[in-house]
Amino acid sequence: MTQNRQRHPPMKQLETVAIVGVGLIGGSVGLALRHRGLARRVVGIGRSAESLKVAEEVGAVTSSTCDLVQGVADAELVIVCTPVEQIAGQVRQAAGACRERALITDAGSTKAQIVRGLDGQLPRGVRFVGSHPLAGSEKSGPATATPDLFEGRVVVVTPAGADASGDGCQEVREFWKALGARVVQMSPEEHDRALAVTSHLPHLVASALAAATPENCRPLTATGWADTTRVAAGDPELWTQIFSANRENVLAALADFESIVSALRAALEMRDARTLREILADAKQNRDAVGN
Amino acid sequence: MTQNRQRHPPMKQLETVAIVGVGLIGGSVGLALRHRGLARRVVGIGRSAESLKVAEEVGAVTSSTCDLVQGVADAELVIVCTPVEQIAGQVRQAAGACRERALITDAGSTKAQIVRGLDGQLPRGVRFVGSHPLAGSEKSGPATATPDLFEGRVVVVTPAGADASGDGCQEVREFWKALGARVVQMSPEEHDRALAVTSHLPHLVASALAAATPENCRPLTATGWADTTRVAAGDPELWTQIFSANRENVLAALADFESIVSALRAALEMRDARTLREILADAKQNRDAVGN
Repeated sequence: MTQNRQRHPPMKQLETVAIVGVGLIGGSVGLALRHRGLARRVVGIGRSAESLKVAEEVGAVTSSTCDLVQGVADAELVIVCTPVEQIAGQVRQAAGACRERALITDAGSTKAQIVRGLDGQLPRGVRFVGSHPLAGSEKSGPATATPDLFEGRVVVVTPAGADASGDGCQEVREFWKALGARVVQMSPEEHDRALAVTSHLPHLVASALAAATPENCRPLTATGWADTTRVAAGDPELWTQIFSANRENVLAALADFESIVSALRAALEMRDARTLREILADAKQNRDAVGN
Repeated sequence: MTQNRQRHPPMKQLETVAIVGVGLIGGSVGLALRHRGLARRVVGIGRSAESLKVAEEVGAVTSSTCDLVQGVADAELVIVCTPVEQIAGQVRQAAGACRERALITDAGSTKAQIVRGLDGQLPRGVRFVGSHPLAGSEKSGPATATPDLFEGRVVVVTPAGADASGDGCQEVREFWKALGARVVQMSPEEHDRALAVTSHLPHLVASALAAATPENCRPLTATGWADTTRVAAGDPELWTQIFSANRENVLAALADFESIVSALRAALEMRDARTLREILADAKQNRDAVGN
């Protein structure tokens, strides 16, 4: 993981940016671009005319279309913000229809499958560099978008090996920095291993907890339950795709988690207060180290 | 579970209330009593002179002492807000030293052990009725206390069988309502079964997640990890006591959770997207039903 703290010249204003998928993330990219004066035209591309209308109304895009080929035609930069299973196909489609040497990135929660599948495959000098802004939430849709969603958040940029020092990678880094994010760069595989631990496993566990709570217990939930299960309100289809795309890493992270749960269970069964206390102290140390 | 929605006459002002343990909960009880003009004198009792000084400084108590016997001498109402392993012993001690027919309650996170151990054991007509305000947090100490901590929160009142219709139970209910809480009444055993699911299990799982997060992954945590693990910052000793006091119920809740985790693991191993989606949808439904 490398974090470049050098000062760079600010991103030059872009003429046309296309955003494929105008939900929370895509809509927030559009709002941030427009609020910061970073793009003259922002074209929103989506399947639902209704969502596109909302995206226009909230000011996230300046125009919109359901036709990806037409929508990306003039774009210098295309950001694909759709569910992970759709990303690679839409990048290919966009690459065939956009300007020569255009730059494409995405906002998918998993990276190896997408980045490796596209590496060296795009025509006419079109460049793709994968990204993942760590700025999701259990909310969705363009009405939830905000211009400051990326402010101070980490965005992981995951070039394929050969692209790590290329100008495309540099431009994608500048793009996210211009939106207020802190950029971290690593390989797609490193990203997927780490995010299995920090995002996908917590989601799986929160969902199991929520699913394990019978209806008659709901009146006795308080902030602890609410916090611990919050992400379980996320879209089941999106998360099924994320778990499936990062299957091996999620299973490995889950195995580590389950072995700690087993240790806690054994300690409780054996009335071993000392081991309980040690594991809880270890957990507290890790939690306190992250803060807020 | 019964929730009494009848209107009652407001609680009469008390002359002297004693609070044993002036941390987040005890300190907030004191602040709420004083802000609402519900008690003329609030005596803080604790082991740490330093904490007692802070409790006086923030206005949670009007006087303080490290001597429980002396502290409860004039009290009509005693609230014991210490870790669960200390509560029963302190209730006995307070009962031997306070006024005849005084009323004692507590704020412990587990109830059966405490309530059953004290049932019929107190001298001179002193009454004990157990309580559990669902208003904890990962914070601790009197400096974190707030007068509105119980506003709109649920407090579970758990009388032993014979006390359920007694005047002590009614007075304890009135007391928490006067602090702004919604009171729910159930048996200590019902309470412990439900709280194992809604509070103790989430804490155990959050702690296992935090403990399973290696240091090098910390820079890639975002709001999802932060929410899901928040309670793991709680005091390891307090929570070791809670798990131990509610051992059987926590193990039962954990078994239910582990069987859902196993189902998720099996679905992921077998690339069974449909089952994944179904469990996540079930979780989302439960989470959405609770809100915020």
